[in-house]
Amino acid sequence: MTSSKIQILRTVHQVRQWRAKFFLNNQSVGFVPTMGALHAGHCSLVSQSLQENDKTIVSIFVNPSQFGPTEDLDKYPRSLDRDLEILETQFKSTPVDAVFVPKVTEMYPSGITLDVENQRGTFVTVHGSSEQLEGVTRPQFFRGVATVVTKLLNIVQPTRIYFGQKDAQQCVVIKNLVKDLHIPTEVRVLPTSRENNGLALSSRNEYLSKEMKDRSSVIYKALQNGEAFYNERREKEESVNANDIVAEIKKVLEKDPDFEIEYIAISHPELLTDLEEVKPGMGAIVSCAVKVPKENSDEKARLIDNIVLQ
Amino acid sequence: MTSSKIQILRTVHQVRQWRAKFFLNNQSVGFVPTMGALHAGHCSLVSQSLQENDKTIVSIFVNPSQFGPTEDLDKYPRSLDRDLEILETQFKSTPVDAVFVPKVTEMYPSGITLDVENQRGTFVTVHGSSEQLEGVTRPQFFRGVATVVTKLLNIVQPTRIYFGQKDAQQCVVIKNLVKDLHIPTEVRVLPTSRENNGLALSSRNEYLSKEMKDRSSVIYKALQNGEAFYNERREKEESVNANDIVAEIKKVLEKDPDFEIEYIAISHPELLTDLEEVKPGMGAIVSCAVKVPKENSDEKARLIDNIVLQ
Repeated sequence: MTSSKIQILRTVHQVRQWRAKFFLNNQSVGFVPTMGALHAGHCSLVSQSLQENDKTIVSIFVNPSQFGPTEDLDKYPRSLDRDLEILETQFKSTPVDAVFVPKVTEMYPSGITLDVENQRGTFVTVHGSSEQLEGVTRPQFFRGVATVVTKLLNIVQPTRIYFGQKDAQQCVVIKNLVKDLHIPTEVRVLPTSRENNGLALSSRNEYLSKEMKDRSSVIYKALQNGEAFYNERREKEESVNANDIVAEIKKVLEKDPDFEIEYIAISHPELLTDLEEVKPGMGAIVSCAVKVPKENSDEKARLIDNIVLQ
Repeated sequence: MTSSKIQILRTVHQVRQWRAKFFLNNQSVGFVPTMGALHAGHCSLVSQSLQENDKTIVSIFVNPSQFGPTEDLDKYPRSLDRDLEILETQFKSTPVDAVFVPKVTEMYPSGITLDVENQRGTFVTVHGSSEQLEGVTRPQFFRGVATVVTKLLNIVQPTRIYFGQKDAQQCVVIKNLVKDLHIPTEVRVLPTSRENNGLALSSRNEYLSKEMKDRSSVIYKALQNGEAFYNERREKEESVNANDIVAEIKKVLEKDPDFEIEYIAISHPELLTDLEEVKPGMGAIVSCAVKVPKENSDEKARLIDNIVLQ
């Protein structure tokens, strides 16, 4: 147990009180929403927020509505004491100003069940960018994300909100949400943080053995192989065939027979529509989801990663 | 044409600039959202807002997303010059501070089509209170209302927002929306404004002849008949049978053969679920929708009204 010196806010009312004085003083507030299980990726967002804003608040909330009934809500790593310790020790000279740790009943006053058909209360959907890629196997995922982010934005009313490029589709959905609903905040997207071997940092990496983490670094290497292919071709051609890029990525990923490729997609950087050709200048998001063996389990962990072509 | 002296804001950016200084000065802002075609009902909301807040802003925006493809979006009365004149002349000593008159493209940056299946962008749904009553014949109505009110609340960021009890279900949906999404505003619901004969004021009354407006006043008289029946019974009984109340209302409404009753409902005052019994103390909302002949048309106008049992 650690006795954190960062101010912990547990209710909406406490956050509103904390926030009110910064409106009066015209001070900017940066906000890093997380589901906890903090790693260096979260810390890079916090660090950027501390640089760009007068005050920084981090939320830690495992959002039930973005999990399907058969997904890993119960098993999702929860480590509040460790998370607070990380925030405290990592940002000593310029500390985080507050952490918002609400209960589910505080965030969902009408209650929440994972069974979408029986859900009551208010939900936010972003049509057009939620259905493809991650949305195919997780049809309620972005509805859950959009709903909780709308709630959090209304509670914190931040000047800027921070996300990692690792969750590329989430970033697009949130940007559309903020634009469409006219939420008065700036969405900041920062580069994906990676292990030295290239593996994208993710709280779900905790499901993996040390050996599997090393093997999973091939996901980024595969994406880089696709990027190198694109960069070589774009020198010679007006546009590069998307299937050819996918093939280059697959070639690397398929070497490990324990890896199950769910998708590799080449998408429009803003609309997330499937591209047949990538045109230099417009570019593309190259993303993939791969299932890899979990430690001490017959189940697989689902890892995602992406790279942006220019 | 009138040259209004009220400040007219046409863009989100202009509203944000207007609003910003009141945050810094800690001044309260009251907001009356309307679809224009202003009548005394709207004016009573504006009047209350002027009393309760330092600043008052009215919006005039006919929201496409709450109309079905076969509904009266194109025919809905639009009279901006007259609306501005009403606001100017009715509130001379304590004037309205600003009117927000956005274009559709300003409110819906991702565009908007009335065909729900093909809609793109962000939408807000309030499950549990949107599907019954008005929602039965207008399945996209409250999704459209919730979406535009969320947008407007994010743009204006009012201290208080004003609605009329006339749209009873809308009031419940908005209260749920504000509670669930943690929107920092207070929802104020004011009593239904009525003609001298009792007819509830509505912009859609413009569809009616003078004679039909008189005949339509029977809708309120029918509801009052139900209320009188309830008040009499509640003295003698622990609860009053809902069907008996409906029968009392029907008795009056059915006298006019040109009236087509769409529904008469006895609903829980907060959940809007159907009640079999009305219990004094808990009370109920008694609401109805009736179709009456339009002036110079074979079509009918759809009028709604309600009364709250205590």
